[in-house]
Amino acid sequence: MPERGSQAPESVQAVLRAGFLAHVGFTASAQPFVIPMLYAPASADTLFLHGAAVSRVLGELATGIPACVAVTLVDGVVLARSAFHHSMNYRSVVAFGTARGVVEPARKAKALRAISEHLMAGRWNEVRGPSREELEMTSVVEFFIEEASVKIRQGPPLDDDDDYARRVWAGVLPLRLSAAAPVPDPRLAADVALPEYLRRFPGDG
Amino acid sequence: MPERGSQAPESVQAVLRAGFLAHVGFTASAQPFVIPMLYAPASADTLFLHGAAVSRVLGELATGIPACVAVTLVDGVVLARSAFHHSMNYRSVVAFGTARGVVEPARKAKALRAISEHLMAGRWNEVRGPSREELEMTSVVEFFIEEASVKIRQGPPLDDDDDYARRVWAGVLPLRLSAAAPVPDPRLAADVALPEYLRRFPGDG
Repeated sequence: MPERGSQAPESVQAVLRAGFLAHVGFTASAQPFVIPMLYAPASADTLFLHGAAVSRVLGELATGIPACVAVTLVDGVVLARSAFHHSMNYRSVVAFGTARGVVEPARKAKALRAISEHLMAGRWNEVRGPSREELEMTSVVEFFIEEASVKIRQGPPLDDDDDYARRVWAGVLPLRLSAAAPVPDPRLAADVALPEYLRRFPGDG
Repeated sequence: MPERGSQAPESVQAVLRAGFLAHVGFTASAQPFVIPMLYAPASADTLFLHGAAVSRVLGELATGIPACVAVTLVDGVVLARSAFHHSMNYRSVVAFGTARGVVEPARKAKALRAISEHLMAGRWNEVRGPSREELEMTSVVEFFIEEASVKIRQGPPLDDDDDYARRVWAGVLPLRLSAAAPVPDPRLAADVALPEYLRRFPGDG
């Protein structure tokens, strides 16, 4: 079966480790919101979430109301011989639970470090860490997963028997989020070297 | 300013034209859901949505309850000299409105065609179209945008004045969803040519 659902914790964790962008849903004043946020796995059943959304909205989320976190990784377009059997290859987690604001400064710094290192391991120790004032201006939320499911589709199209004789190209167009060569800040001094963790991307010298 | 918000319809439309994956949020039985769905712009203020989610959940959405659609395009990691000024380059739309199921078969076929052509222009006319039974098995939802806002961040990091002297690499790691060489279905006859709309991807013959 190319498509399958699961609630196996190791499958959920594998997808959460592979992604970094979550779409977080919750209801405030009877209005559903979906907010894109960066995240990092914090434990087997918690995530740290950080976003640039209006703090009023994030403040609502942080009160512990029911929430939903979706992480979707797009792996390809599945091109079948019939319109009906077209699909995407993807890995997707939908997790239900509640969120709480991370308030204590040391714990907030720990969460920000986890999110930074999850996105780009090695970066945190090279840059100036957050000041007390900066930490206060930053919103971090911890999400407690109560129930999560993963859906994964992979592999070639599955057509109806009658359609395999059709003379149309069928297969998969693989997709992935990929990095191009790092672009230096115009204000970067010319003799500051590209760090090790950025050297694997194409085009850098 | 590298980061800006807007409600200008042309900015919203530009992001909606550039994406194909939406995260759709709504509340059913007091539980928020966020579901990944393919979409296509249908008009200046409507989207067609199509997803593989459990039909019970989509059925709830299609009753016209308040919903939220988020489309997020990730353009890069912004690497500043301080942890605090790290960011992402991105284009993001959050739209509020209501959804209705598309029921009438001809209109459902039109919506599926729009979604297919939005993802891969030229494909629909080459494949077998949906039968009446297949249309009945397919869920399509039309989303009516009542209010939408766009947020865009682009360009280099913006650091505090004091931090520019730091000897740490700063700049942007550009990210984009990119396609690799198309992978033929193992059951594809060897003499079926790759169609024009797939020839622009790397590695194909």
